[in-house]
Amino acid sequence: MSNLEKQLAFIKEIDKLKYIERKTRLFNSPRHENDAEHSWHLAMMAVVLTEHSNHDVDLLKVIKMLLIHDIVEIDAGDTFLYDNNKSHDNFDEEQEAAKRIFGMLPEAQGHELIALWEEFEAGESKEAQFAKSMDRLEPMMQNATNEGGTWSEYDLHIDQVGKNALKIKPGSETLYKYAKGLTEEGMEKGYIKNGKSD
Amino acid sequence: MSNLEKQLAFIKEIDKLKYIERKTRLFNSPRHENDAEHSWHLAMMAVVLTEHSNHDVDLLKVIKMLLIHDIVEIDAGDTFLYDNNKSHDNFDEEQEAAKRIFGMLPEAQGHELIALWEEFEAGESKEAQFAKSMDRLEPMMQNATNEGGTWSEYDLHIDQVGKNALKIKPGSETLYKYAKGLTEEGMEKGYIKNGKSD
Repeated sequence: MSNLEKQLAFIKEIDKLKYIERKTRLFNSPRHENDAEHSWHLAMMAVVLTEHSNHDVDLLKVIKMLLIHDIVEIDAGDTFLYDNNKSHDNFDEEQEAAKRIFGMLPEAQGHELIALWEEFEAGESKEAQFAKSMDRLEPMMQNATNEGGTWSEYDLHIDQVGKNALKIKPGSETLYKYAKGLTEEGMEKGYIKNGKSD
Repeated sequence: MSNLEKQLAFIKEIDKLKYIERKTRLFNSPRHENDAEHSWHLAMMAVVLTEHSNHDVDLLKVIKMLLIHDIVEIDAGDTFLYDNNKSHDNFDEEQEAAKRIFGMLPEAQGHELIALWEEFEAGESKEAQFAKSMDRLEPMMQNATNEGGTWSEYDLHIDQVGKNALKIKPGSETLYKYAKGLTEEGMEKGYIKNGKSD
C-alpha cells in the first residue's frame, strides 16, 4: 500500500472514536459526550487557554496530543477517571491498541504518533502536563453545570475529586486554582461528599 | 471580566457545536455527523495528510482554522454544500455569529480567531487552501461508504459534485486525484447522476 492508502485507511478507522461514549455529559445536558467531540473541545481549550500554562509550550504538540489522546479507546474502551478497578490496569490493552491503530499509518508517521501518545500518558513533559490540565478540567466544568454530574452519580468524596484536580497543577497553577474553586462549590452544594471514600 | 472568565465562558458556549447536525453521515453509518466531531476529524486529517499539501504549510495554523471553521454555525446553522439557496446568502449571518461568539474572548484573541476564520472563508492563503481540501474531502469519503450518501439523497449530478471536488485541487493535487476517482466510482455505481443539474 502507498502512504496515501495507509493514511486514508487510518482516517476511516478513527471515525470509530465518534461512538466511544464518556461517562461525563455535555454542558447543562443529559447527553453523554463522545471521545471525538471531547478531543475537539480539549484542542479548542488549549488554543484559548495557552497563556495560563505554567511553561512556554509548543502549542502544535499540545494540540496533536489532545487530538490523538483517546484514539486507543477505539479498542480499549473509555477509562473512567474514578474507576479504581480499571484505570491503572488497562495500560497493556491501550499499548496494543496504539500499535494496531497508529500502526496502520506509514511506519515513521505511526511511530511519531505512538511516541506522542506515550509522552502524553507519561505526563512529564511540559506539553503533556498542559494537555493533561485540559483533559482534567473539561469534565469538572461539565459536572459543575450538571448538578454534580459524575461527582454525584458515582458518590465521590472530596479526597478523590481533589486528587484528580491536583493533576491540573503541573500544567497550570491558574487553572488549578479555578478547578479547586469548582470542587469547593461542589461540596457546598452537596454534589461532592465530605471526608474520605472507602 | 478577567481574561480567564471570558475564555471559560467561550469554552462553555462552543459546546453547542456538538448539537449542530450535518447532512453527511459517519462512515458506513446512518448516523449524521455533528460539527464538533467533524472538526476533530478534519484536524486529524490535516495531521496525517500534510505531506500531500501542494505547498509547505504552517500546520498549527491549518489545524486552528479547522478547529474553529464551523463555530459560526452555532448561530447561523449548517450550510449544506449543495444548497444553492443558502450557501452564498448567509455570509452576513455568519459574520454576525463570528462577532458574537469570538467576541466573547479577550479582544486581541477574539480578533485573531475572527481573522483566521475569514482567512479560511476566503480560501486564498496556502493554509486556507489545504484546510479547504480537508473540508471537501471528508464528506466525499463518507458518501463513498454510504451508498452515495448525500450524492444520492439529493439527486446530485456530476457537474455539481465535480465542481465541489475541484475545490480540493488548490490545496492538494494528490488528494484531488483521489477525490476524482471517488466521483468516477460514484457515477459507475449510479450514486451520482450523469449530465447537468437543472
